[in-house]
Amino acid sequence: MNYGDQAETVKQCMISILDHVRSYIDRIRDEDIDQMIRTLLEARKIFIMGAGRSGLVGKAFAMRLMHLDLKVYVVGETTTPAFTDQDVLIAISGSGETNSVLTSARVAKQRGGKVVTITSYPSSSLGKMADCLVIVKGRTKDDVPASYIERELHPYQQLTPMGTLFEDCCMIFLEGIVASLMEVLEKGEKDMKARHAVLE
Amino acid sequence: MNYGDQAETVKQCMISILDHVRSYIDRIRDEDIDQMIRTLLEARKIFIMGAGRSGLVGKAFAMRLMHLDLKVYVVGETTTPAFTDQDVLIAISGSGETNSVLTSARVAKQRGGKVVTITSYPSSSLGKMADCLVIVKGRTKDDVPASYIERELHPYQQLTPMGTLFEDCCMIFLEGIVASLMEVLEKGEKDMKARHAVLE
Amino acid sequence: MNYGDQAETVKQCMISILDHVRSYIDRIRDEDIDQMIRTLLEARKIFIMGAGRSGLVGKAFAMRLMHLDLKVYVVGETTTPAFTDQDVLIAISGSGETNSVLTSARVAKQRGGKVVTITSYPSSSLGKMADCLVIVKGRTKDDVPASYIERELHPYQQLTPMGTLFEDCCMIFLEGIVASLMEVLEKGEKDMKARHAVLE
Amino acid sequence: MNYGDQAETVKQCMISILDHVRSYIDRIRDEDIDQMIRTLLEARKIFIMGAGRSGLVGKAFAMRLMHLDLKVYVVGETTTPAFTDQDVLIAISGSGETNSVLTSARVAKQRGGKVVTITSYPSSSLGKMADCLVIVKGRTKDDVPASYIERELHPYQQLTPMGTLFEDCCMIFLEGIVASLMEVLEKGEKDMKARHAVLE
Repeated sequence: MNYGDQAETVKQCMISILDHVRSYIDRIRDEDIDQMIRTLLEARKIFIMGAGRSGLVGKAFAMRLMHLDLKVYVVGETTTPAFTDQDVLIAISGSGETNSVLTSARVAKQRGGKVVTITSYPSSSLGKMADCLVIVKGRTKDDVPASYIERELHPYQQLTPMGTLFEDCCMIFLEGIVASLMEVLEKGEKDMKARHAVLE
Repeated sequence: MNYGDQAETVKQCMISILDHVRSYIDRIRDEDIDQMIRTLLEARKIFIMGAGRSGLVGKAFAMRLMHLDLKVYVVGETTTPAFTDQDVLIAISGSGETNSVLTSARVAKQRGGKVVTITSYPSSSLGKMADCLVIVKGRTKDDVPASYIERELHPYQQLTPMGTLFEDCCMIFLEGIVASLMEVLEKGEKDMKARHAVLE
Repeated sequence: MNYGDQAETVKQCMISILDHVRSYIDRIRDEDIDQMIRTLLEARKIFIMGAGRSGLVGKAFAMRLMHLDLKVYVVGETTTPAFTDQDVLIAISGSGETNSVLTSARVAKQRGGKVVTITSYPSSSLGKMADCLVIVKGRTKDDVPASYIERELHPYQQLTPMGTLFEDCCMIFLEGIVASLMEVLEKGEKDMKARHAVLE
Repeated sequence: MNYGDQAETVKQCMISILDHVRSYIDRIRDEDIDQMIRTLLEARKIFIMGAGRSGLVGKAFAMRLMHLDLKVYVVGETTTPAFTDQDVLIAISGSGETNSVLTSARVAKQRGGKVVTITSYPSSSLGKMADCLVIVKGRTKDDVPASYIERELHPYQQLTPMGTLFEDCCMIFLEGIVASLMEVLEKGEKDMKARHAVLE
């Protein structure tokens, strides 16, 4: 293995992610944001579901919703209760076709609850089931650059493998939703810190 | 509660995060990157530890290291084995003072292994224990804006509560490390996809 | 609420669980045990999957397999890699119909790997997919006592709600499998302790 | 490796665990049970903490407390909030000296809350901090049989490695506490099933 002088690659990759998120910001539809916030605030309980790194991004969001004193649960964690028709599921999947996320969304719909889908593919299975659809742009796992030419146009994109751009874009978008909820709920940092876990 | 027209807040918060990360990129010390990559590649096993959202960012990184076929484990997960003097612990904590992360780092040092600390505070307890120190800039949980004036200067910074800037900066920095490792290890996206979990 | 003097209920419940497990031991088929152990030892990697408390029992087993130096992963944890045709999935479900476990088992079969099913229902969907089937007796979530008479016959069974008997029986059965693997692999407690996690 | 005919070992190990739990039942102090139940019911929120397999046993208990509609959280999970002086921490550790569990217990006490310690060693650090102490007998990780003679007297005890007996004993004891809480809270299986997670 040959290493040393890797700083340039690291920084170019980081800039490439920032550029991607920046270009996404201008394409977010304002009405999607308003609808998502309304759906979150009207729900009795909020459930978060994603697989792999999308699931981790979902958990980072869930932690902040707890800090905001909303009733929020991560699907699959120990003390997550039953989902009812008063509840909303936030289903995160770049491709919109992840098996386990689809299963959760189907059960949520059967039980009469709402589904907020966060995906790159509005026409995916998960996209079609959405009561509220948020498109987050990313190369997803299934868009491997098809040709050398394409890779030359986006030299560092191959260095953001699989769902990386979706996941990072989604993480930062959800930070924005947290900021908005702080404003709407009139919660400051002190309120949130008071709810922060302390036993770890 | 009064909501609707929240898009502006969401977008300003997102831009504020991008600006923060952008300003951080120029301050990353090249030698820290090279040392971190060398330390990762020379270790027999890599262990990742962080609490709360820092822990989630660490897990997102760990997943990619697994895709790169490195031996990597998350502290606290079910099948994580013993740490030995051939191993490295990546300890992530904005403040550098998180109890559980400190405990892990102390045991890692006692056992003769290495510690890579990722923190905003080089002179913190965790910073002082580092064999390899990476500074990631962020307001951490303990830098609540002190006065109204300060908040006026950075109107949306209060909308990135607690460790948000550290965590997002850390996430994107670690994506850069993944890009670099792909280059050094000559692994492409196809190699990584072949190792991606499929049973979920 | 009226409490105090609850020791009798606690103890009767515990005895009821012990009686259940004791009656199960005599019904375990010896050839199932040998086949399960052979399947585990012939696999390149072992994956464990279960939902809810069955999943927790599976994790307790996975931890011991790691102590025995077998390559073992829990489905859904961060560093769990791809499943291949050299691998085995241990799928745990009392009813044999849990959605997420079925999905994992289907993918495992499609990929040419083996499935060890641990269930109370050999004719369930999961039972039918098994290369190796282990029946663990329990009332499962769907056997709520039908009548008062039945409850009178088993007064404390209602106090082992839902999957309790399956889960406890499964936990103790898997301890037996660990004991057997220690013998076959000639591993003592010291070998296992040397692999035990130390960073928590 | 030589295998086949392992059924005898599996069954002897299982019987050895049942005998251990049976002998424990007679030694449980009735007043400990009553005090534990009172403490759980008087708490505003219940937090559960354990490392490794003790943590898994704690999670299995936490899930049932959720089914009983108590406010319960697992330390380290995503949406676990701050601990207050109205709350109780259930700290599970065979040795009573596990670092991460001790840290949680110390913070819980500092904050003015209560600690229920479940351990084999009443005079351990964790035992001494307990507001309510429950002794669960087990060989713990640190009681490796000292001599061959001792092992001959208990031939299969070595086949219940490290904390096995503590963990299984603890699991079944906590099932008893669930049974008791069902009685005190007048909750039946149907009430509990109605709260059971459905999105997995």
